[in-house]
Amino acid sequence: MSKKSINAISPTRTEDYPEWYQQVIKASDLAETSAVRGCMVIKPWGYALWENIVQELDNMFKGVGIKNAYFPLFIPLHFLEKEAAHVEGFAKECAVVTHHRLTQTESGALKPDGKLQEPLIVRPTSETIIGESFSRWISSYRDLPVLINQWANVVRWEMRTRLFLRTSEFLWQEGHTAHSTADEAIERTHQMLDIYARLLEEYLAIPVIRGKKSPSERFPGAIDTLCVEAMMQDRKALQAGTSHFLGQNFSRASNIKYQSDQETEEFAWTTSWGVSTRLIGGLIMTHSDDDGLVLPPKVASAHVVIMPIIKKEKDRALVTEYTRNLTKELQNQTFDGKPVKVELDDRNVGSKNWDWIKKGVPIRVEVGPRDIAENAVFVGRRDQSPKSRQSIPKDQFVNGISNMLNDIQNQLFLKAENFRNENTFDINNTKDFYKMFTTKNEKKIHGGFARSFWCGSAECEEKIKNDLAVTIRCIPFDKSDKKGQCICCEKTGTGRVIFSKSY
Amino acid sequence: MSKKSINAISPTRTEDYPEWYQQVIKASDLAETSAVRGCMVIKPWGYALWENIVQELDNMFKGVGIKNAYFPLFIPLHFLEKEAAHVEGFAKECAVVTHHRLTQTESGALKPDGKLQEPLIVRPTSETIIGESFSRWISSYRDLPVLINQWANVVRWEMRTRLFLRTSEFLWQEGHTAHSTADEAIERTHQMLDIYARLLEEYLAIPVIRGKKSPSERFPGAIDTLCVEAMMQDRKALQAGTSHFLGQNFSRASNIKYQSDQETEEFAWTTSWGVSTRLIGGLIMTHSDDDGLVLPPKVASAHVVIMPIIKKEKDRALVTEYTRNLTKELQNQTFDGKPVKVELDDRNVGSKNWDWIKKGVPIRVEVGPRDIAENAVFVGRRDQSPKSRQSIPKDQFVNGISNMLNDIQNQLFLKAENFRNENTFDINNTKDFYKMFTTKNEKKIHGGFARSFWCGSAECEEKIKNDLAVTIRCIPFDKSDKKGQCICCEKTGTGRVIFSKSY
Repeated sequence: MSKKSINAISPTRTEDYPEWYQQVIKASDLAETSAVRGCMVIKPWGYALWENIVQELDNMFKGVGIKNAYFPLFIPLHFLEKEAAHVEGFAKECAVVTHHRLTQTESGALKPDGKLQEPLIVRPTSETIIGESFSRWISSYRDLPVLINQWANVVRWEMRTRLFLRTSEFLWQEGHTAHSTADEAIERTHQMLDIYARLLEEYLAIPVIRGKKSPSERFPGAIDTLCVEAMMQDRKALQAGTSHFLGQNFSRASNIKYQSDQETEEFAWTTSWGVSTRLIGGLIMTHSDDDGLVLPPKVASAHVVIMPIIKKEKDRALVTEYTRNLTKELQNQTFDGKPVKVELDDRNVGSKNWDWIKKGVPIRVEVGPRDIAENAVFVGRRDQSPKSRQSIPKDQFVNGISNMLNDIQNQLFLKAENFRNENTFDINNTKDFYKMFTTKNEKKIHGGFARSFWCGSAECEEKIKNDLAVTIRCIPFDKSDKKGQCICCEKTGTGRVIFSKSY
Repeated sequence: MSKKSINAISPTRTEDYPEWYQQVIKASDLAETSAVRGCMVIKPWGYALWENIVQELDNMFKGVGIKNAYFPLFIPLHFLEKEAAHVEGFAKECAVVTHHRLTQTESGALKPDGKLQEPLIVRPTSETIIGESFSRWISSYRDLPVLINQWANVVRWEMRTRLFLRTSEFLWQEGHTAHSTADEAIERTHQMLDIYARLLEEYLAIPVIRGKKSPSERFPGAIDTLCVEAMMQDRKALQAGTSHFLGQNFSRASNIKYQSDQETEEFAWTTSWGVSTRLIGGLIMTHSDDDGLVLPPKVASAHVVIMPIIKKEKDRALVTEYTRNLTKELQNQTFDGKPVKVELDDRNVGSKNWDWIKKGVPIRVEVGPRDIAENAVFVGRRDQSPKSRQSIPKDQFVNGISNMLNDIQNQLFLKAENFRNENTFDINNTKDFYKMFTTKNEKKIHGGFARSFWCGSAECEEKIKNDLAVTIRCIPFDKSDKKGQCICCEKTGTGRVIFSKSY
């Protein structure tokens, strides 16, 4: 007989991690591929998760003075051409609108007609089109800073796509600010990165490393790209958010000028920063297990699901009334400053406990006649084994719901942080470095984060990328001044940087 | 000397209504035209208004069991072809993506490259692409109903565009539902129209007439289109929201089948319904006056603006402290179940009272040393003349804020309702009908709503449209059974329908 326990998701993480990821999404009903190449359908359970993330982030943005606005989906071709590095970075993978009409051919088939004088690009990002507005909005230092965010869809024509992680169309926010000094713009770049870190750590329970990108990994056209990087359960890195200091590159390209208080004419200093539906991919790969999705309570669309257990018809009235009352009592409790969100699942199907496990709801409660006789509820926590359910006196459960949700939130963060720390290594010589990224561990997963010295040359970065498909994920802000030998060329490097395979 | 009073908006409504509309948008900073043909930039004050509308509507949707999801921006060409009336309706004005890359020519210019095997249409509406998902989601009667909404941008290549009212790209929601019976689908179509009517009347303070479209005005592919119609201040009608019963047309086109409880295979019955950023155009044209925008309190992003009046530096500390405390006191009050939203404008500019009048904030409060000496505030209401400001004891003002906001909300609705009723006429003969739509009234505006009998023929409808640019806006639900002579052909028609010029 096999010693393997039965899991809800097949294959398991160790059997086939990429396929496990797809199956978790399918089992939890978050999203699916569509009939349109590379575009996904975000299903209600996935979209509700996105709405929760949007709400928390939007509140944080508004708290630091950012205002939302909306700019055109299309970018005239010549706008893209204005910034050389930018067009280089985005021209290779963009959707191009060339016609504005369809007409019927003699055979009855439809074909594009009404050719546009200038092709339009479906925005891959909006620096150039928003820059055009900024150039009209800004004329004096008194107009600055301008602090704008846009919630939007963008399109990048990806060849190899994966749900949430890399899709041709995705949802995101893109912030764009303009300032009168470089210092103020840089400060804003850091402030927004801190907000991303807070969203990830406090809400998504994903520990992150904050740092800078190396020049080769910068946003096309940026002076500096800051990032938050997280470790997934296959030990690969996920870039979860980026914040760019654009210097005066885009203000020169878009002619964003202002008159200073000294009456001189100056180019503004700009920033941009964004996170996307990719965060959901990161959330899945950080917390989910071989039974499916695991949702951190602070972004879960339901905190508790209540399942009445009715085996005999004579118990129906009793159990129905008890669970309805329980639902109301829980909804009167608060978690994270808002009412506790409760689902009452009174479907008469045997699979419902497992349905909610796979969907990742933090707390499951079963209530049958025997529980009611004891005024107790039978509770399962998603951060614990499906088997470790326990009976809890009902009032104690209701009054303790906020604490239990907080505990789950904290446990998920700690587990992810431990995993990352256990798989982060100070690697000091080339041989160990190559071994780390070519040998599979007992879980058939290789890699992790290598904290190693780097001389700063693009050549060494390139060699490691070609040899191992490993890149510098970030140069951490808390990099020490300690010196050591570059992991590639043996020249001296300052402080350790994070090398890893990545999504 | 001219007897004309000076207004903030030039021209006034009577001088040039279309230009007045553009100037109100400009003065209130809601939106602007962009560098992309027919696409607008929604500026922060306009986008915040849209966010408020979205929030109220989204809550109402969720209250009746609708779930949000997200579907691809692009529609493969052959999907559009599946429903004949639908493609006829949308093929003439759509953005067509034909390439997925840009490459540099020898001269250095960029040109489209990477031709797609099949062109993609930027969604003008999503029945066909959502239908494709529904066909996979639905297999049994137990899967029904499916109740989905999407918040999204859509593109219709309009030749003549106007901010909010008609733009090539606009923001909207589109609901799509599938049911096992025609009756249930029809009931849902009505329920969603009722929600639109509630949004318009209770939140936007816009009175509407609910009814059905005539066959010629139906959504392409629909069996029946229900609508809510409002009257603007130039007496034209604005279609503010539509809800379509699609019968089995789209389920046949997209193959949305289910097994019934009798084990027969059936096509589902579907609906779709939507409102868009056009609502903001309707709101502007219903309430705004010759001094600018007028916002109904229930969707205003600020309910009250507080303006400290500091003429001497020695008063600064006193006035600053008093207005900060007043801000907090007001924020502790609630209106419509949420905290009162307060802006504190401490800019040192002479224009600030007029700035907020033009932006439409319901209540303006000025506070200077003399007001403080009397523990009073100087209050202006946006629904009243800018000159009719009055001093109110501070505590009375704070405690009465919710009532005052409710009163403004109600006054705006009543004013709009009176205007509509005064400009709605029972017209019984052809001569009066033609006169009504060709003679300008004392305000240089002609038309209004003509309640007249119609025989039901497309020919009469067409003749009136050609002669007068007047259409049947709706066949009201509360149409009586009374019979009368068709306003065009003199055959007998049942009940009166609404004829009007329209946006």
